[in-house]
Amino acid sequence: MEFKPTEHQHVRYNPLKDEWILVSPHRCLRPWSGQTEESPTEDQSPDLNNPLRSGATRANGQKNPIYTSTYVFPNDFPALLARVPEPPPADHPLFQSSQAKGTCRVMCFHPDSTMTIPLMTIAEIEAVIEEWVNQLKELGRRFTWVQIFENKGAIMGCSNPHPHCQIWASSFLPNEPRIKDRTQKDYYIKHGKPLLVDYLNEELRKEERIVIENTEWVALVPYWATWPYETMVLPKNGSPQRLTDLNEDQKTMLADIMKKLNTKYDNLFNCSFPYCMGWHGAPTGPNHLPSDSPHWLLHALYLPPLLRSATVKKFMVGYEMLAQPQRDLTPEQAAQRLRECDHSVHYKNKN
Amino acid sequence: MEFKPTEHQHVRYNPLKDEWILVSPHRCLRPWSGQTEESPTEDQSPDLNNPLRSGATRANGQKNPIYTSTYVFPNDFPALLARVPEPPPADHPLFQSSQAKGTCRVMCFHPDSTMTIPLMTIAEIEAVIEEWVNQLKELGRRFTWVQIFENKGAIMGCSNPHPHCQIWASSFLPNEPRIKDRTQKDYYIKHGKPLLVDYLNEELRKEERIVIENTEWVALVPYWATWPYETMVLPKNGSPQRLTDLNEDQKTMLADIMKKLNTKYDNLFNCSFPYCMGWHGAPTGPNHLPSDSPHWLLHALYLPPLLRSATVKKFMVGYEMLAQPQRDLTPEQAAQRLRECDHSVHYKNKN
Ligand SMILES: O=P(O)(O)O[C@H]1O[C@H](CO)[C@@H](O)[C@H](O)[C@H]1O
Ligand SMILES: O=P(O)(O)O[C@H]1O[C@H](CO)[C@@H](O)[C@H](O)[C@H]1O
Repeated sequence: MEFKPTEHQHVRYNPLKDEWILVSPHRCLRPWSGQTEESPTEDQSPDLNNPLRSGATRANGQKNPIYTSTYVFPNDFPALLARVPEPPPADHPLFQSSQAKGTCRVMCFHPDSTMTIPLMTIAEIEAVIEEWVNQLKELGRRFTWVQIFENKGAIMGCSNPHPHCQIWASSFLPNEPRIKDRTQKDYYIKHGKPLLVDYLNEELRKEERIVIENTEWVALVPYWATWPYETMVLPKNGSPQRLTDLNEDQKTMLADIMKKLNTKYDNLFNCSFPYCMGWHGAPTGPNHLPSDSPHWLLHALYLPPLLRSATVKKFMVGYEMLAQPQRDLTPEQAAQRLRECDHSVHYKNKN
Repeated sequence: MEFKPTEHQHVRYNPLKDEWILVSPHRCLRPWSGQTEESPTEDQSPDLNNPLRSGATRANGQKNPIYTSTYVFPNDFPALLARVPEPPPADHPLFQSSQAKGTCRVMCFHPDSTMTIPLMTIAEIEAVIEEWVNQLKELGRRFTWVQIFENKGAIMGCSNPHPHCQIWASSFLPNEPRIKDRTQKDYYIKHGKPLLVDYLNEELRKEERIVIENTEWVALVPYWATWPYETMVLPKNGSPQRLTDLNEDQKTMLADIMKKLNTKYDNLFNCSFPYCMGWHGAPTGPNHLPSDSPHWLLHALYLPPLLRSATVKKFMVGYEMLAQPQRDLTPEQAAQRLRECDHSVHYKNKN
């Protein structure tokens, strides 16, 4: 029997995480009788108590200004505080704790609570990117890791539909970037080139997992994608290591590809597509010089949970949590479906 | 300021996964206005179309026998099949795939669809344990890893409320046990004793994370627990490495602690407590001799998502997926709350 990746189960290696993923494409035939989610809520009338709204009074009594573009403020319930006492040294190698200092911010993308990235103008998205760069510049001076991330949709635990992301900066390098730092460094030492630069070149040659590209960026479904419609957004030119390395063209074209990719996502199941997205780039802080991370390539990750429709998601549960992630459709099939989705007209603007 | 683990954020090290977890206990004060789940369904009238029912006809036309205890059958939509062609060798180090062979089974715990472990008798739970041992014995001869796991509750992607677990056996060692094999081996080489044996001894001395124990087993909230009410069930005597190593006393007392722990779980929020649970023990298959894994200690893991109530769960989303897991209440606080829950009378049997 000849091996066909769209028919025959196999495992694939994720060189960034040094992990494997089980691909079982024949399982797409499985009927679904489990839990469904509520359809993502659409254009509800704006909630005047929404604490992210321009001019709103927040839980702590502070009032937001009447902002017209982006707006950043400290998270009122931060998981990371700037000043905390240090835990005592460990009395046993199996009971180790360590100090964690940091800060958490909320960043609104737009004053309108019903707005989302694919519906915003390029100029409005550019303002978001510009603010990301500012935040990284400021927080990156003090903190080792600045995680910019967006939880979009109630299904992703997002407690507020207002378009926003979060920024959690920490004194420590968290697990995921720590592992990626190591795997990219190992590859760089061995091959003399950044892992993701080599990877992107191969993907551009192979073409089968590319979703969309412009002059500066590529959005693709990684060969080792875990979530059904997971994508990675990678820069094509100049190997920027951090958001702060982007030039003007890269920023403008990033706004372009973000709008197009998100329009495709929303058009896939005709819903405001839920996801976690975030940026990974070289570590920052006083211990990292701008030039000491040639093994890194900046990239964004979109991790969306939907599998079959606006209401049926992929559950990462028993086998996935205890053994290994598993996916049904192949990354190539996901890329093809996303390629076929319109990137220019959003389903809400069709009539 | 003096460090107080229940007040001050810190990171803790998980020596089994070689990962850290961010503990932010001050965040318990955060109000919740995000997505809530439907309350786990209770005692609905049994669905006569339920394919797991004794005597039911399944999707493929096969008929279940009129079983009266446990019942095991092949998963009708398996993620792992026994025979698949081998993928071609990788043409690039960043595009590696490999063969995955295996088998997936479903194991019913009880003929009654409304039954759950805490409501079953000790003898009925013993039958479940006995069948786990049989399955591991049979599948472990051929397969490197036999993952026994239970997804309980719709919130955990469980598509059928009938009490059951799954068994996925594979030709490869999945990520999670692969890492645990390495970390336990490293510890064993360095300290001459199994990591989890040393760990359990320390926990029994410290007492603050113990939930419940009997003569043979301990259920505790690990020092590095990720999920709010995560527990680990560990054997106290004889260092069994696999389920097949358990003696009669260990099996009987395992039924006892499973019933008690699950009664506590259900009594915590007065609901049938959702979770993923599963077993981790030394690898099996033709490449593993019974005696070649002295670094392993068999243990069960319970990974339940609920955080605040029967309907509010912990979301492992943006920061957790892109950076590092985060928890609010400390493992010690979780252990105390579980200790305070009644283990002898289930809330459904109270009146
Ligand atoms: O119980 P099911 O229907 O087989 O499936 C469930 O558990 C599997 C193993 O953890 C997951 O891969 C599925 O995503 C989940 O829906
Ligand atoms: O958006 P919120 O309300 O801060 O919180 C959400 O995102 C956080 C960061 O990923 C998670 O720790 C929370 O569990 C989730 O509910």
